[in-house]
Amino acid sequence: MKQKIPVAILGATGLVGQRLVQMLADHPWFEISALAASAHSAGKRYADAVKWHLPTEIPPGVRERIVGPCEPGLNAAIVFSALPGAVAGSTEEAFARAGALVLSTASAHRMDDDVPLLIPEVNPEHLDLIPVQRARRNWGGAILCKANCSTIHLVLALKPLADAFGLRRLVVTTMQAISGAGARGVSSIEILDNVLPYIGGEEPKLETEPLKILGRLERGAIVPAEFSISAHCNRVATQDGHLETVSVELERKASLQDVRRALAEFSGEPQQLRLPTAPAHPIVVRDEPDRPQPRLDRDAERGMATVIGRLRECNVLDYKFVLLGHNTIRGAAGGNILTAEMLVAKKYI
Amino acid sequence: MKQKIPVAILGATGLVGQRLVQMLADHPWFEISALAASAHSAGKRYADAVKWHLPTEIPPGVRERIVGPCEPGLNAAIVFSALPGAVAGSTEEAFARAGALVLSTASAHRMDDDVPLLIPEVNPEHLDLIPVQRARRNWGGAILCKANCSTIHLVLALKPLADAFGLRRLVVTTMQAISGAGARGVSSIEILDNVLPYIGGEEPKLETEPLKILGRLERGAIVPAEFSISAHCNRVATQDGHLETVSVELERKASLQDVRRALAEFSGEPQQLRLPTAPAHPIVVRDEPDRPQPRLDRDAERGMATVIGRLRECNVLDYKFVLLGHNTIRGAAGGNILTAEMLVAKKYI
Amino acid sequence: MKQKIPVAILGATGLVGQRLVQMLADHPWFEISALAASAHSAGKRYADAVKWHLPTEIPPGVRERIVGPCEPGLNAAIVFSALPGAVAGSTEEAFARAGALVLSTASAHRMDDDVPLLIPEVNPEHLDLIPVQRARRNWGGAILCKANCSTIHLVLALKPLADAFGLRRLVVTTMQAISGAGARGVSSIEILDNVLPYIGGEEPKLETEPLKILGRLERGAIVPAEFSISAHCNRVATQDGHLETVSVELERKASLQDVRRALAEFSGEPQQLRLPTAPAHPIVVRDEPDRPQPRLDRDAERGMATVIGRLRECNVLDYKFVLLGHNTIRGAAGGNILTAEMLVAKKYI
Amino acid sequence: MKQKIPVAILGATGLVGQRLVQMLADHPWFEISALAASAHSAGKRYADAVKWHLPTEIPPGVRERIVGPCEPGLNAAIVFSALPGAVAGSTEEAFARAGALVLSTASAHRMDDDVPLLIPEVNPEHLDLIPVQRARRNWGGAILCKANCSTIHLVLALKPLADAFGLRRLVVTTMQAISGAGARGVSSIEILDNVLPYIGGEEPKLETEPLKILGRLERGAIVPAEFSISAHCNRVATQDGHLETVSVELERKASLQDVRRALAEFSGEPQQLRLPTAPAHPIVVRDEPDRPQPRLDRDAERGMATVIGRLRECNVLDYKFVLLGHNTIRGAAGGNILTAEMLVAKKYI
Repeated sequence: MKQKIPVAILGATGLVGQRLVQMLADHPWFEISALAASAHSAGKRYADAVKWHLPTEIPPGVRERIVGPCEPGLNAAIVFSALPGAVAGSTEEAFARAGALVLSTASAHRMDDDVPLLIPEVNPEHLDLIPVQRARRNWGGAILCKANCSTIHLVLALKPLADAFGLRRLVVTTMQAISGAGARGVSSIEILDNVLPYIGGEEPKLETEPLKILGRLERGAIVPAEFSISAHCNRVATQDGHLETVSVELERKASLQDVRRALAEFSGEPQQLRLPTAPAHPIVVRDEPDRPQPRLDRDAERGMATVIGRLRECNVLDYKFVLLGHNTIRGAAGGNILTAEMLVAKKYI
Repeated sequence: MKQKIPVAILGATGLVGQRLVQMLADHPWFEISALAASAHSAGKRYADAVKWHLPTEIPPGVRERIVGPCEPGLNAAIVFSALPGAVAGSTEEAFARAGALVLSTASAHRMDDDVPLLIPEVNPEHLDLIPVQRARRNWGGAILCKANCSTIHLVLALKPLADAFGLRRLVVTTMQAISGAGARGVSSIEILDNVLPYIGGEEPKLETEPLKILGRLERGAIVPAEFSISAHCNRVATQDGHLETVSVELERKASLQDVRRALAEFSGEPQQLRLPTAPAHPIVVRDEPDRPQPRLDRDAERGMATVIGRLRECNVLDYKFVLLGHNTIRGAAGGNILTAEMLVAKKYI
Repeated sequence: MKQKIPVAILGATGLVGQRLVQMLADHPWFEISALAASAHSAGKRYADAVKWHLPTEIPPGVRERIVGPCEPGLNAAIVFSALPGAVAGSTEEAFARAGALVLSTASAHRMDDDVPLLIPEVNPEHLDLIPVQRARRNWGGAILCKANCSTIHLVLALKPLADAFGLRRLVVTTMQAISGAGARGVSSIEILDNVLPYIGGEEPKLETEPLKILGRLERGAIVPAEFSISAHCNRVATQDGHLETVSVELERKASLQDVRRALAEFSGEPQQLRLPTAPAHPIVVRDEPDRPQPRLDRDAERGMATVIGRLRECNVLDYKFVLLGHNTIRGAAGGNILTAEMLVAKKYI
Repeated sequence: MKQKIPVAILGATGLVGQRLVQMLADHPWFEISALAASAHSAGKRYADAVKWHLPTEIPPGVRERIVGPCEPGLNAAIVFSALPGAVAGSTEEAFARAGALVLSTASAHRMDDDVPLLIPEVNPEHLDLIPVQRARRNWGGAILCKANCSTIHLVLALKPLADAFGLRRLVVTTMQAISGAGARGVSSIEILDNVLPYIGGEEPKLETEPLKILGRLERGAIVPAEFSISAHCNRVATQDGHLETVSVELERKASLQDVRRALAEFSGEPQQLRLPTAPAHPIVVRDEPDRPQPRLDRDAERGMATVIGRLRECNVLDYKFVLLGHNTIRGAAGGNILTAEMLVAKKYI
């Protein structure tokens, strides 16, 4: 790629915005053309506007950039939106109307009929919703969403099982990292020596988004997958990495070895296309008795893999296992960067 | 009670031993007659032998006591054993053979056919195993066990459901406190900014002990209850208080209100007998969206209650909820003290 | 005391406000006559307005109380103000003007010439500023302040040394609990697996407030004490309890035993007057090598003591030690309740 | 370097041993020829013997290596010893006697007259003790020690000040990470929601080692530097990175700018020699109000730098600042690897 593609970041000062800045600063295909944030930050140097929370430094080329307002006209074909929920919806629409491909981490448009909820390894065929969306909304651009950070890793684990054996139902309990709530989402006195057994709005997302993602596209519309999910969502005192225990019932009989193999051998289009941010193995299966662990495994494949361990039989459903994934990399910033790479590879840009 | 009953504590320097010391120091019925521990501690003043981990002080009357060896002859009708697994089995037998009622927190004898696995509110009728045990083993004393700390709180929640609606199967995920592993069981680098998705031996206990506790005593033997449990056990960075998410399928149809009422109205013999350590409400039901939480709720009813919250319908089984209980109080020291009180009230002593 | 004295709490929903509610709910002399907070909370039931962070329950008598606005006319002779800094100054003045004795935890008026910065054991004679303040400001009431939470415990340790040996200079490094910053002051991602080596505005307070508190009242004005303090303030991941390491140079030679005795024997007017909230020992000296520790010692004397340990010689100044004190009890709510008790005992009310 | 130099690691399964394995696996000059550990581990595959605590994987080339006993004959010119204190002394002597250059992280030989306590940027001239040691002990090899992990970063900060302005005295308070105590040194219940205000043996090391390191070598012996240090050592709940607050008095007057410049411009022989592990800047000075922080700054210069911030005037001594350094990289494994590189560059091997 001779010339890099200009991309903009909306909500660039938040925690996911910071990950986007970190991951895009040296990206082989993209270059940051604009940083935008709320009125509170607009007009300031990025280094002054941001309270930086990552252990790497603010990339030198970004420190002095002036943060702009979140308004169309940013000279960017791709717009990464990490806006907070309240403002994301209308702002993203404005950018898509103005012709940009908007990749959103917000939940505002996730369940819109004509918006792909994309995990590049799982449902790349849902990109065919883009022309549907454009036609229906009369937009030059389009909005694509990533799923909830817990959903993404769950669905990465479910996809090979759905393909090979079918899914009937599953119970999942999450232990989610504090960074999933944003920079000020969880106060320290809430979580030190504590677990919060509730995350507002999270369980409905985890119970419905997978059905859309694993649904079939038929005549320009998604027919949701038909299986049941029951979710228990908890917040624990980890910086990054959502851990999930899963008990699952399959449609067709499968041996433990069959299930292990289906997981371990899973691969998708991003791997075939050798996209820059694609993990070599989207699923990493570990056989030690006590893995995955957030501190040790969240950075597997540079945070882009779902790590699965403790695969074993379940007394109540068929099989059970533990999965872990980085919530702000694959679960947010990295997930949408991978989608952007796929859009380029498939000539949507 | 004019004269207090002398009791001994085996393993008095460990974390559960410390809780026993704390709770027995001012007990209205019992007085500590002997403290015993491993050869490493025997012969020392208790204050020198113990690395005290509780935020209350070592009780003044206990500081200067000399720790003895774990050998029969301690002049105590009741012996609380908080010995580590490896030595618990034979030592407890020696004391029971010598005539003591041994109340053990160890797992060595839990699944013995003739040993009651007792939760006073749940299966007081299992005390009828004591004469069976004595006859079979030709002992003057007897061994009684408490269940695993996660099991106790789960079974307290299940008992009213089993009685009212029957149980078919359930999936439980635990988030267990570090004190459950003893004073040096979990190193700090293992758990800070981390979750351990595995606790050695814990899941089999949680999947089998409830069946014994909720079993029927028939002709001197326990017929295990018949339902299925699938457990996922995790260690999280909390000091005390095991949190568990539960999805359960009932045998008979019940409304959410029926279930809530059965839980909230649960009461047992310890409450009728007004035992000193009995909680007024063995189950506390909370209706806030985000409770129970370990830091806020573990000390409910002085650590003797199981706190249940977030009761709601489950997409996969019938109902789901979150429960929390103090692992070293009701889950260990306090649980066995309550059993000892019941033994006194029922004239076993 | 036949009839309890009505007291109001301003800022009743914040973290210090919650401690005030907790400590005043069963107070033998006071009864809560009014709860007030910001416009956001005013008009709501207290239980609905507050996000309760303490492990004890909201006192039953308080749950249903309606929170009012922070405006004079609350029918309370004593007003406890736990208002945030920005609004505290003028609101407290309005109440004092209207005749109330305002006991403030805010810093707005701390360094005003005519406002006592009171620690009841240390400088009760500074109450003589009240008539000065009233005369100068033409108020029926008055404002009294507590010092910064780190200052209070430091000064409790310094007072007996100042009296017995004189103080020349000292270096103090604090490790302060997260609750010191209020309910949302420190986000979890800032402090988990981290230390913040800076607390805005804290070091200047710690370097100047002790000079006022230990100053002499001469002709209606405080002559500040003359010694030097250098402070390094840090935030660490503890819920409650500020820990401070202190190296101090004395004016007059003293043996280690002299110093230990001066600390251990310290007592003041609250002890003589047997005020309800007064600790039996305002300073607790411990001789173990590794105490005080926040988790184990912050609740000493129900959180009203300063616990001192590791007293030893210093290579650079004369002596060094570690001190610990509860920041929201003695360091805030409890400190001001003790002052209120002294006002009653000394007939200011 | 055509052929890599074979090196052995003693104590390869401990926490510092793991860092040595991690850092030496791809070293440009060295290759691991032998892994040795206690009898408990000897004979096992490394992957089976070690409980790995680092977020990177065990290097593939090391997983299958068989761990040997800690006995001479390991075919390695350089022996990195990360043995625990009790056994380090005699074992290291045996290896040095047998001809190896032993680089020890243990404290056994640190204060021996003829053993260099080396920080390559600070006292490379102390390497001249090697011939003295060899002559006196009649050894073919030699022992070199790194200082205590807190000492190393403190001395890196003091060296430029000592050179430019002279040192008179200083007070330092440390907040040290849990990894400094080894894999099982600090139990989780000791440190969660807590600070330990005491680390056994640490303060004497921090008060004496800097005097040796900054001493002058005269006629084959070190004349210790003459200034006073008072240390307060604390353990806090961070994974890695020791934070230290320092107040220092200089011998000669210096402006704040002079001091800042001396720190920021500091460089030493490892930088001149461009040693592979040498940081570009051994001291990184930061000007933000709230840095350095352990989580954000410990990995500066791949963990090989000392990060200094908050430089300002001190009311009691002259200047004060905060410093941070990685304790298991520069403070242990990386520090000794840098020393080994210097030994090669200076033809000791």
